[in-house]
Parts: sequence; structure tokens; C-alpha cells
Amino acid sequence: MIDETSFFGDISGTREEILEATYYALCEHGYAGLTIKKIGAHFDKSQSLIYHHYDNKDSLLLDLLGYMLEQIEQQVLFSKEPPGDYIDIVVNEIFDETESQGCAFTQAVIELRAQTAHNEEYYELFRRSDNFIRKQLTQIIRAGVNKGVFDVDEPKESAALFQTVLIGIQTEYLTADTQTIAESKAEFRRYVETCLRA
Amino acid sequence: MIDETSFFGDISGTREEILEATYYALCEHGYAGLTIKKIGAHFDKSQSLIYHHYDNKDSLLLDLLGYMLEQIEQQVLFSKEPPGDYIDIVVNEIFDETESQGCAFTQAVIELRAQTAHNEEYYELFRRSDNFIRKQLTQIIRAGVNKGVFDVDEPKESAALFQTVLIGIQTEYLTADTQTIAESKAEFRRYVETCLRA
Repeated sequence: MIDETSFFGDISGTREEILEATYYALCEHGYAGLTIKKIGAHFDKSQSLIYHHYDNKDSLLLDLLGYMLEQIEQQVLFSKEPPGDYIDIVVNEIFDETESQGCAFTQAVIELRAQTAHNEEYYELFRRSDNFIRKQLTQIIRAGVNKGVFDVDEPKESAALFQTVLIGIQTEYLTADTQTIAESKAEFRRYVETCLRA
Repeated sequence: MIDETSFFGDISGTREEILEATYYALCEHGYAGLTIKKIGAHFDKSQSLIYHHYDNKDSLLLDLLGYMLEQIEQQVLFSKEPPGDYIDIVVNEIFDETESQGCAFTQAVIELRAQTAHNEEYYELFRRSDNFIRKQLTQIIRAGVNKGVFDVDEPKESAALFQTVLIGIQTEYLTADTQTIAESKAEFRRYVETCLRA
């Protein structure tokens, strides 16, 4: 669960401090406007330390992206909790955590996702993360089928739609108002109750 | 319905030719790497004509974005066709047209959507387009309810989820493989049959 203020709350090293500075600089200036100098403005120590740790802006952003995707993956980790309860938690994570992450986090992720067409490494990282998330979702839904709480023939298909909705909300969150997001959530809950729940 | 090769097929003026050049330059270089010079490389006439029509890169991109959003809006225009049939067409448009538009079109839209956090005009344009699309979807679903083919209490909520899925697929299309998109579509069809159809 991500809290905007504590996202880098357990910072304990130069790498984490650089990532934090990069995150805030990315949120402030966007991908197109980001420079090492602007990252340095959010970094308390010498800017040369950034070059000591990273070859260039892109290797730094790649490290940040991996860090951020891990946060998103936490939202849908397979759990031993009863799947019938846990699916509600996942739906809340998709809709409410996206909101609590704040526009800055979501925007940074979408900006980097948009770069996948121009950057093979970003592409690979998103692919791996998306596949991981979809597999976790499939496991949760399959566990529910096995326990008789869900009635689904193809857990993979349900997981794929969950992922489309997760990515859709992340993207939509940049422009949609709270009411529209709430309406989408209400309908997605209706889908879970009607199409998943046994 | 958008065909990658005919997207600018009825070009009949300098403005359209500039927009076409901008589209291809955006697809090739991405938002961050785009310059008027690179746009000029895709433009048969003098680069000075671009400055004659547009103040700067951003006003040009804004015009292109408006043009592209109109294409997307065509996918979900309210129609007098029977809503029970038409909803299937809309689902196909969301999933298959996104694919046939090609990664380049989708990527360009998502790149510009990611800029909404830094550009008030993009933000307003996406807001207006998203609102328009959601209203069209609401009208289609409400017409189905009125004709007794859909059984939905809140057409607005169903329309909101349709929009989340539309935006999700556009974004996901950058990285997802064909099979994953097909799985998501199969599940979304199941939602339409189970949660919408009377």
C-alpha cells in the first residue's frame, strides 16, 4: 500500500535518495523536461554522486521505474486470505490506492509507459511487471474457484480484464474526476459480484 | 473506423499535410524527441509554412490531438442501430480498432495524455473528449434499457467502466501481446452478456 508521503519513507542509502530526487523531479518537470541538473535540485548531496551511481538519465529512470512497479505489484500480491474477501481488497487497491498514490505517482508511471515505444528496456520492464501482476490475479481468482466462492471458467480471462481496468484507471486518473472514477468502480464491483462470485 | 494507411488519406490542404507530418514525426521520435525540424523532414513543402500556420510545437500538437481524438470519438458515436447489436460493434471497436489503429496511433495518444499533467490545454482537450465519449456510451446503454434489451440501473456507471476499459486497452496495447488483449476482450464480452443484456 503506497502512501505518497512515505513512498520513500524508509530511505537508507544514497541510491534511495537519488531515486527519491528523481521521482520528485519527474513529477515536477515530466519526462520530456527532466535533466540530471533538475534531479540534482531535489538532491541534498553533490550532483556528481548521481553520475557516480548512474551512467545517464535513462539508466536512473530505469532503476526508478523498477522501484515504482514493485509498489504497484504489492497491490495484487497473491495472499492466503479467503479469496472472496481478498478480491474486494484488490478492487479497492485498484481504484482507491491509485487515488491515494496521487496524481504524481500515476502520472510518472504513465509517462514512462508511454516511452515503451522508444525504449526497449522500459518495454521489457513493463512487460515483466504486467505479466507478474496478471499471474498473481489469475492465482487469486483460481484459488476462489477451487474454494467454490467464484464461478469462472477461465481465470486467466478474468485476470486479463482486471489488468485492463487497473491500467485504465491509472491512465484515466490523470484527467477523470472523482465521481467518474467512483462510477467506474461501482460498475466493476457489479461485474465482480455478477460474473465472478458463485 | 481508422485505417493506419488512410488516417490522413483525404488530405486536401496544407493544414492536413502538416498534421500528417507531425503525426509521423511524433510516432518516430516520441513527444520528448519531437522538434519542428523533425516534423519538417516528413513534410514535402517548406518548413517555414509550418511556422506560418502554427506559433510553436505545442500549438501544432494541440491541433493534431484534437484531430486524433475525433477519430476515437467516431468509435462510440451514438447510433440509431438496435442498441443490442450496436453494443457488440462498440466492444469490437474498443478492442479491434485499437489494434488496427496500430501501435503508432495509440502510442501517440498515450504520450500526449501523459502530458496532461504539464499542459493545461491537453488536459482540457482530453477532459472534453472523455466526457463526450462517456455521454455517447451512456446514451447507447440507456437506449438499450428503454428498448428492454439491457437491464441496467445506472447506465452512467456502465458507460464509465466502458471508458476505463477503452483507455486501459489503448494504454495496454503498447506492451501487451495479442493473446492477452483477446483474453481481456473475451471477459469484457462476458460482462456485457451477463451484466448488461436483459
